[in-house]
Amino acid sequence: MSGNSFGKIFKITTFGESHGEALGVIIDGCPSGIEIDIERLQKALDRRKPGQSSPDGKLSSSVTSRKEPDKAEILSGVFEGVSTGCPIAIVVKNTSQKSADYSNIMNKFRPGHADYTFYKKYGIRDYRGGGRSSGRETLARVAGGEIAKMVLEQLLPSIKIIASTTEVAGIKATEYDESQIEKNSVRCADAKIASQMEEKISQFRKEGDSCGGIVECRVSGMIAGIGEPVFDKLDAELAKAMLSIGAVKGIEFGSGFESAKMTGSTWNDNMSMKNGNVNFLSNHAGGILGGISNGNEIIFRVAVKPVPSIFKQQQTIDIFEKETEILIEGRHDICLCPRIIPVVESMTAITLLDLFLQNRNSSLYNTEGIKK
Amino acid sequence: MSGNSFGKIFKITTFGESHGEALGVIIDGCPSGIEIDIERLQKALDRRKPGQSSPDGKLSSSVTSRKEPDKAEILSGVFEGVSTGCPIAIVVKNTSQKSADYSNIMNKFRPGHADYTFYKKYGIRDYRGGGRSSGRETLARVAGGEIAKMVLEQLLPSIKIIASTTEVAGIKATEYDESQIEKNSVRCADAKIASQMEEKISQFRKEGDSCGGIVECRVSGMIAGIGEPVFDKLDAELAKAMLSIGAVKGIEFGSGFESAKMTGSTWNDNMSMKNGNVNFLSNHAGGILGGISNGNEIIFRVAVKPVPSIFKQQQTIDIFEKETEILIEGRHDICLCPRIIPVVESMTAITLLDLFLQNRNSSLYNTEGIKK
Amino acid sequence: MSGNSFGKIFKITTFGESHGEALGVIIDGCPSGIEIDIERLQKALDRRKPGQSSPDGKLSSSVTSRKEPDKAEILSGVFEGVSTGCPIAIVVKNTSQKSADYSNIMNKFRPGHADYTFYKKYGIRDYRGGGRSSGRETLARVAGGEIAKMVLEQLLPSIKIIASTTEVAGIKATEYDESQIEKNSVRCADAKIASQMEEKISQFRKEGDSCGGIVECRVSGMIAGIGEPVFDKLDAELAKAMLSIGAVKGIEFGSGFESAKMTGSTWNDNMSMKNGNVNFLSNHAGGILGGISNGNEIIFRVAVKPVPSIFKQQQTIDIFEKETEILIEGRHDICLCPRIIPVVESMTAITLLDLFLQNRNSSLYNTEGIKK
Amino acid sequence: MSGNSFGKIFKITTFGESHGEALGVIIDGCPSGIEIDIERLQKALDRRKPGQSSPDGKLSSSVTSRKEPDKAEILSGVFEGVSTGCPIAIVVKNTSQKSADYSNIMNKFRPGHADYTFYKKYGIRDYRGGGRSSGRETLARVAGGEIAKMVLEQLLPSIKIIASTTEVAGIKATEYDESQIEKNSVRCADAKIASQMEEKISQFRKEGDSCGGIVECRVSGMIAGIGEPVFDKLDAELAKAMLSIGAVKGIEFGSGFESAKMTGSTWNDNMSMKNGNVNFLSNHAGGILGGISNGNEIIFRVAVKPVPSIFKQQQTIDIFEKETEILIEGRHDICLCPRIIPVVESMTAITLLDLFLQNRNSSLYNTEGIKK
Repeated sequence: MSGNSFGKIFKITTFGESHGEALGVIIDGCPSGIEIDIERLQKALDRRKPGQSSPDGKLSSSVTSRKEPDKAEILSGVFEGVSTGCPIAIVVKNTSQKSADYSNIMNKFRPGHADYTFYKKYGIRDYRGGGRSSGRETLARVAGGEIAKMVLEQLLPSIKIIASTTEVAGIKATEYDESQIEKNSVRCADAKIASQMEEKISQFRKEGDSCGGIVECRVSGMIAGIGEPVFDKLDAELAKAMLSIGAVKGIEFGSGFESAKMTGSTWNDNMSMKNGNVNFLSNHAGGILGGISNGNEIIFRVAVKPVPSIFKQQQTIDIFEKETEILIEGRHDICLCPRIIPVVESMTAITLLDLFLQNRNSSLYNTEGIKK
Repeated sequence: MSGNSFGKIFKITTFGESHGEALGVIIDGCPSGIEIDIERLQKALDRRKPGQSSPDGKLSSSVTSRKEPDKAEILSGVFEGVSTGCPIAIVVKNTSQKSADYSNIMNKFRPGHADYTFYKKYGIRDYRGGGRSSGRETLARVAGGEIAKMVLEQLLPSIKIIASTTEVAGIKATEYDESQIEKNSVRCADAKIASQMEEKISQFRKEGDSCGGIVECRVSGMIAGIGEPVFDKLDAELAKAMLSIGAVKGIEFGSGFESAKMTGSTWNDNMSMKNGNVNFLSNHAGGILGGISNGNEIIFRVAVKPVPSIFKQQQTIDIFEKETEILIEGRHDICLCPRIIPVVESMTAITLLDLFLQNRNSSLYNTEGIKK
Repeated sequence: MSGNSFGKIFKITTFGESHGEALGVIIDGCPSGIEIDIERLQKALDRRKPGQSSPDGKLSSSVTSRKEPDKAEILSGVFEGVSTGCPIAIVVKNTSQKSADYSNIMNKFRPGHADYTFYKKYGIRDYRGGGRSSGRETLARVAGGEIAKMVLEQLLPSIKIIASTTEVAGIKATEYDESQIEKNSVRCADAKIASQMEEKISQFRKEGDSCGGIVECRVSGMIAGIGEPVFDKLDAELAKAMLSIGAVKGIEFGSGFESAKMTGSTWNDNMSMKNGNVNFLSNHAGGILGGISNGNEIIFRVAVKPVPSIFKQQQTIDIFEKETEILIEGRHDICLCPRIIPVVESMTAITLLDLFLQNRNSSLYNTEGIKK
Repeated sequence: MSGNSFGKIFKITTFGESHGEALGVIIDGCPSGIEIDIERLQKALDRRKPGQSSPDGKLSSSVTSRKEPDKAEILSGVFEGVSTGCPIAIVVKNTSQKSADYSNIMNKFRPGHADYTFYKKYGIRDYRGGGRSSGRETLARVAGGEIAKMVLEQLLPSIKIIASTTEVAGIKATEYDESQIEKNSVRCADAKIASQMEEKISQFRKEGDSCGGIVECRVSGMIAGIGEPVFDKLDAELAKAMLSIGAVKGIEFGSGFESAKMTGSTWNDNMSMKNGNVNFLSNHAGGILGGISNGNEIIFRVAVKPVPSIFKQQQTIDIFEKETEILIEGRHDICLCPRIIPVVESMTAITLLDLFLQNRNSSLYNTEGIKK
């Protein structure tokens, strides 16, 4: 069943494996008349590339040190710098998929990876790497997400979507200074805690281990009314979008799991007026009520599991259902949080844009978001 | 945009408001040849009805004390007790939607409810109650879910889907004895803790307040291979299904948010063989890897917010954007967990069945789940 | 697979068999704020009922002579006469599905009917009648279509959708006087030819035979720009809509099959200006170019097969694959054209509205059809 | 709205304009384990290329005379010659999209083309050619269709899908000898008539005109039971598939529009047994009853309009809504029938495969088409 598309009106369909010829995306449903900035698209892809948790330890330097960049080519749907309304195809060639020696692991299932489940589902063992389940797949999401942001910003200039790391290996951020996020290798908004996180990651690298974390996403400037009850609620669609990212194991909105400890009288966000605008006195709901945005900041957190590739002997089985051990080699990330941030923002942008466009038909009375 | 359908092959489309004529569901894509047990369907609906946290305090007694039951009528798609392959329509009449006096709250937005967001989206104020955002909407999900279970059980007799309350107002279950779940009013698998939870709920009732909780769902007997990468992953679809339930504010699979504190070497579920079967030595993944079931128990938890209707004065605004206060009257649940449990199980069944049917076309090699 | 839904934004999902409890439709994606006229809805259903070609021979009288009307009940989605944005469920009870004696034909497949194919597909023999393949199924389409018309007319007051019979049993209309259509029992716009058609139908009734015909549909007042290339073209969607009606065996747009005899120089519709408006000098394209409306009248014709139920002995087989003969009893239509006309108009309205709403998101430049 | 996808389970999503960088298709939902023959894929694309009705007048020679072939590259989804279950992306670079001098026609709408409607819909004038509405778009359909045929043939070896030209400019074939189809430039199964058609086309070429025709498609070896009532009927989906092809203006199944002249007693296909198999004594239904295949040959015809690009002065308007004249230059086909044939076969294959896969879930009793 065709599980490689996301969205209804603004829809992305992605393809590509980590060791195949190329990866890419077809963006269908992009309105005509949107200025498409190819340089900005390229920068978004660069931002997703291997970062601080790779051996060199620096986010920015590691990005530029790679000789073979993920170069985006737009094959269709853009004419003279503007979207035409036709599908936009973006392709990125794989340039470093060398034929390595896989004899060591080709018949073994790597613990924590999708090797076993893909084999059970498709009856195929593509031993060259993660294939379709590789994190490299998210490149196509970021390409689609950057186009989504360009559309969103032209429809709704107030919108801002910012994700950051709030926890790594049990170390939690306590401050939120947005200007700090891109200044440290873990993309944490708390500069002081960021240093502690980096140190912890360094330590795991030495130990040949990896670690998990939490990423938080905040969306400001979104109008009220977005989300389609009862099944295509804004939070339901965001939850699907986030859990479709490989390493994500959970999501919570607003007070989330803390709500389990709260009472109605403390949880309910009371309402008032402020400078002529509707104002919520708190935000336990995370900006969403009944699956529809309420105009408050949309806020959610996702749980990111530890990188499954570690430099330690692990117990596993092979494709012949024999018990064996495995030792994975090669360079790997230690903590996925900083690299997942662009993916989280991209999937958020696609989800919000798609529901925003859907909402245009919700009511005869509706005029918001209509370009006149 | 049509947000009232869920599923691709086995698809439910629901309708109905809390104070309208009726609620119901069309189930499209039910294979022919399934024995449809109408009594069992009725029991499933009864199990969802107002329970322990309403004033009378007892789950079973409260169910029987209501004079007007939610009676399910099957209007189509079943002939001589067997599904025909045509859409199955199930309708439940609303019998107690009396014309009450709403003048007190008809122009005011209830905090924590979807009143304000529905008004912003649709420009309509249906002041008679929650309307489409009422918990009563879940009745149609349970009807659809019970049919889904009948199909699943005929395709996969080993399957078992059980949800239970693991936390109420900060009180956490520590034991798991499945046989206890239906024996206490909070549907908790830990009998001792259940009593503490009931006591706590009693206290909130006296105070006119409400509380949140956590519901956990366990699925055993599911084969490996279910879930459609990359966007329609099993966990992504379950996350959407759960977050589409009104009061749910978060979901986590396996170790979930705890993963943020773990390392790769502790998180990865190592594999071995046991009695000729593939065996995982732990279950931090919650039975899902790369969005595909791995044959291990599927396990996830959802965060349930406190019931927003409380018997306390709250600050709010009205439809004229004037500040005001509101006091909600009438009977209301205190904690939604026990009533959400049938809904969680139903949405789980629908999601699993839909992906199970989709999986039949994943591979030429695939034979599992095919009735010969 | 869920084949009982039609449309993407404005979507209908139908259910019900000819001999079941009820038939109905859920309309999802109806914008809020539309005035819903229940009397008009009822009239639309009455217009579809058995008519001139049944034994009594008169359209209007036959409608009123039935004791048990197809009474529409709206169960949801409408509050104080206005659509709320929530799904609108409409149900019509079956009141005359008596338990007749089917022993004569219960195991035999009626030639020209879907008995055999439904049996092969679903493995079920619902011997009581056409079941889901009965013409009675179209009742739900007409209910959905009438709501679609109410929406269309509020968005686009200029729109007019009129179908009429242009051929019956080889007798062809030569004039087009719209005012005549509802004045004769065959719904033909040529009064003189209509009489000949009625006579011919009378003759077939006496002979126990039936006949086919052609229905033409004309849509005026549609703006240019409607239809979604490349697969969801306006003509592609209309073709699907029409061929989904049981007795329809073909469709052609504009010059249609005559195009096979034409040259480019005669076929191309040249363009000019007229009173400041774009004007086509002919309409061989039937108002659609490249799958998008061009503002010209949309015109298409559908081929209607003869009613398969005839009062003659026919050769067939039974469910045990034994050869046998069959003689069908009961009252049946002779020519389906007049009864199909409301269905053709309804499916046209649904298709046009759905594509009209989709088009709102086609372009940043787009302002047509947006209610300000 | 995303109109560039076709199919539900086996789904193609296409992109690309005639003068852009590349065209291509993502095939999602291809089961794993299918042998993918890249040479065969290339041959299918070659068969679609400009043919007999271009100035050189010969089908085969014209194909080889082009220096820059439409070379297909498979970017993903195939490993060691076998489909993996992941999306298959196929891209064809545009190599001959030279920057010609368009000043002559860049602001004028070509009659019979989609220039005007695309401009009205998207507000964009891509003056370089047909863009997304060019016939070149069908290349992606043929690529998708050839993969579909590979799957179909592995699931159902008996299947055969053959289209041929039955009418050109009023000249009709009277014989059907399948072996003749690829032996003449019009792809007609009647060798004698084919010569007359070729002559007629030659004459139109000299006159600077073009002509229309009819293409017939026959599918043998399809099992009964395929098609999803009530809206996704086999004929409804085929009608959508065919009408989505640019130049197609009509479709009819079996006796089609002739049904309008027939009676029930002549139309109904009576049934008998023959050598132990179910046998229809005629095929007025074209192999489809109630939207489901009956096991008889599936047969339909599509009306193909004359090529709109002709070498004659035509009256039109420009983008400033000024009246003007236009003379189109360059090489163009005279009659589209032979080039549309591979497209018709491809869209038929995709439609049949998709419904075949859907049907696997129609019944618990169903075992046909399941690979054991």
